[in-house]
Amino acid sequence: MDVLKYLEECAALVEPEIDRWVPREIQPEVLAKAMRHLIEAGGKRLRPCLALTACEAVGGKKEDAIETAAALEMFHNFTLIHDDIMDHDEFRRNVKTVHVIWGEPIAIIAGDALFAKVFEAAAANASRLKLNLERTLELFNTLSKASFELCQGQALDMLFESRDDVTEEEYMRMISGKTGALTEAAAKAGALLGNADGKKLQALASYGRLIGVAFQMQDDVLGVWGKQEKFGKPIGSDIREGKRTLIIVRALTTASDEDRGVLLKAFGKSHATNEEIREAIGVLKRIGAIDYVAERARKLVAEAKRKLEVLPDSRAKEALLGIADFVVEREF
Amino acid sequence: MDVLKYLEECAALVEPEIDRWVPREIQPEVLAKAMRHLIEAGGKRLRPCLALTACEAVGGKKEDAIETAAALEMFHNFTLIHDDIMDHDEFRRNVKTVHVIWGEPIAIIAGDALFAKVFEAAAANASRLKLNLERTLELFNTLSKASFELCQGQALDMLFESRDDVTEEEYMRMISGKTGALTEAAAKAGALLGNADGKKLQALASYGRLIGVAFQMQDDVLGVWGKQEKFGKPIGSDIREGKRTLIIVRALTTASDEDRGVLLKAFGKSHATNEEIREAIGVLKRIGAIDYVAERARKLVAEAKRKLEVLPDSRAKEALLGIADFVVEREF
Repeated sequence: MDVLKYLEECAALVEPEIDRWVPREIQPEVLAKAMRHLIEAGGKRLRPCLALTACEAVGGKKEDAIETAAALEMFHNFTLIHDDIMDHDEFRRNVKTVHVIWGEPIAIIAGDALFAKVFEAAAANASRLKLNLERTLELFNTLSKASFELCQGQALDMLFESRDDVTEEEYMRMISGKTGALTEAAAKAGALLGNADGKKLQALASYGRLIGVAFQMQDDVLGVWGKQEKFGKPIGSDIREGKRTLIIVRALTTASDEDRGVLLKAFGKSHATNEEIREAIGVLKRIGAIDYVAERARKLVAEAKRKLEVLPDSRAKEALLGIADFVVEREF
Repeated sequence: MDVLKYLEECAALVEPEIDRWVPREIQPEVLAKAMRHLIEAGGKRLRPCLALTACEAVGGKKEDAIETAAALEMFHNFTLIHDDIMDHDEFRRNVKTVHVIWGEPIAIIAGDALFAKVFEAAAANASRLKLNLERTLELFNTLSKASFELCQGQALDMLFESRDDVTEEEYMRMISGKTGALTEAAAKAGALLGNADGKKLQALASYGRLIGVAFQMQDDVLGVWGKQEKFGKPIGSDIREGKRTLIIVRALTTASDEDRGVLLKAFGKSHATNEEIREAIGVLKRIGAIDYVAERARKLVAEAKRKLEVLPDSRAKEALLGIADFVVEREF
């Protein structure tokens, strides 16, 4: 299966639905623009696609999960806008970030407003399908618990910035909240809307969590390794910002004193020269920190794929398997 | 009825429930502290009290709305934390604001995390009462639509900061979103949980909206007129910050050129002297801008009380009438 084409198919389905929930007509106009800015800048629509595909994989139709799929993209964009403020990131998806264009207050509000719409869209979905009370509440709990876990992950990420002794285990806990919680919620919400039984629901939730974590690891790899034109963020920006990615956590615990010195010359130094960044990246490659992370991500993906064994064969299942592989094979 | 005592009664009921949803044990610890900071600093618990009382006024028990009452206080505190960041406010409820103590990133996350808990608590309420699907969805829609309207109001407020020509009508629209939406949601949610019929539901929603708007107007009055020890915010800070309160909007459109000059010497000038602030306040009093706003607030309260005529007599109804009066009679 051509996964990119499949993602595009899903995106085409969900796009009008996102427009319906975040219309250009929102007042005041600046709020509409700020809410729509990163949405319009692109993105793979991975989370909506997970929800639609999970719904289909358990016997539902993609359309059954369409409002929630849109909700998940709004949710994701809410977290991106707020994260960019916290991380002082100036670019994302090759465009300026929301707070850079409209200032922090409007960016904070735009994020909050997208978050507010998440639950409205999910309620509309439950209402249209005439879901029973139990499933409706589980849908809401899935979304609200994911958002709280996401906040916990983001808080850990912030705390890590001022620490040099973050362990791999701590990193994994952080990233599980920051990225895994929402991809889990996406797959689980889709399965809920497709009326999955308990076993399939749990399998898809686990699948979502695992590929989310793998996704973030691959993001960390691409942040050092990838091409800026494709990836959309300046290469080495994670290093300049001093972000505790798993690559860095691994490198700081395994590098020789000399290599560590080269790393620390660039790490967290906003004024590091391009040469210093290049040398730091050279160390990360040579000591195997990048390969280590890529390998761990591949193992998570393999585990995620095994979770899907409870599902009957279908095009949707094939797509979920393909998406899992795509997560670690992508270059953007 | 002694309204203050009644508010304290409601607060005593809801306090343990808030602790249950925002426990000290939340990890990481800094997130628990930041989420709980303003909650612990006090506040009247007006919104929870509105929900509990509305529920009782339509024939339910206060306990029927307890999770949602807690949710409303979490909701309110989420908006306070984010607003304080946007307004660069350093004090609230006589304590330092969250972003001043823990920095903006943690403050943004703490607000988001409180918001996330709102829907979890509401879902728990619906689940405990075995509410039917229709009412459950209406509860969720009430909360999510209020939060979106709140964002719209806050965005307008931000836009007004750079404008000198805000009209009273624009101000009213802003404040209706920023304050009225949530008090409406509080009274409406309580009524929903008390199984109110359509007429009572609508009456209580309108009551909530009206007293919310009046509440904000009184806040504006106290910001110029009140005593800092009681009110918790430095007197004149609204003037220094250049906030478009209705008092200012009114004054800028009705003052003589000379008086306007005195106002503009202090208005929006962070370095205005205490003497300049005092003179500006003098003008606001003399030209009747403060009385004008206080009078409009009193009229809204009278209208709010009339909405309650559809309710049978009860202690809860008496409390709602008393709360309406309290909104414009309070000094804190």
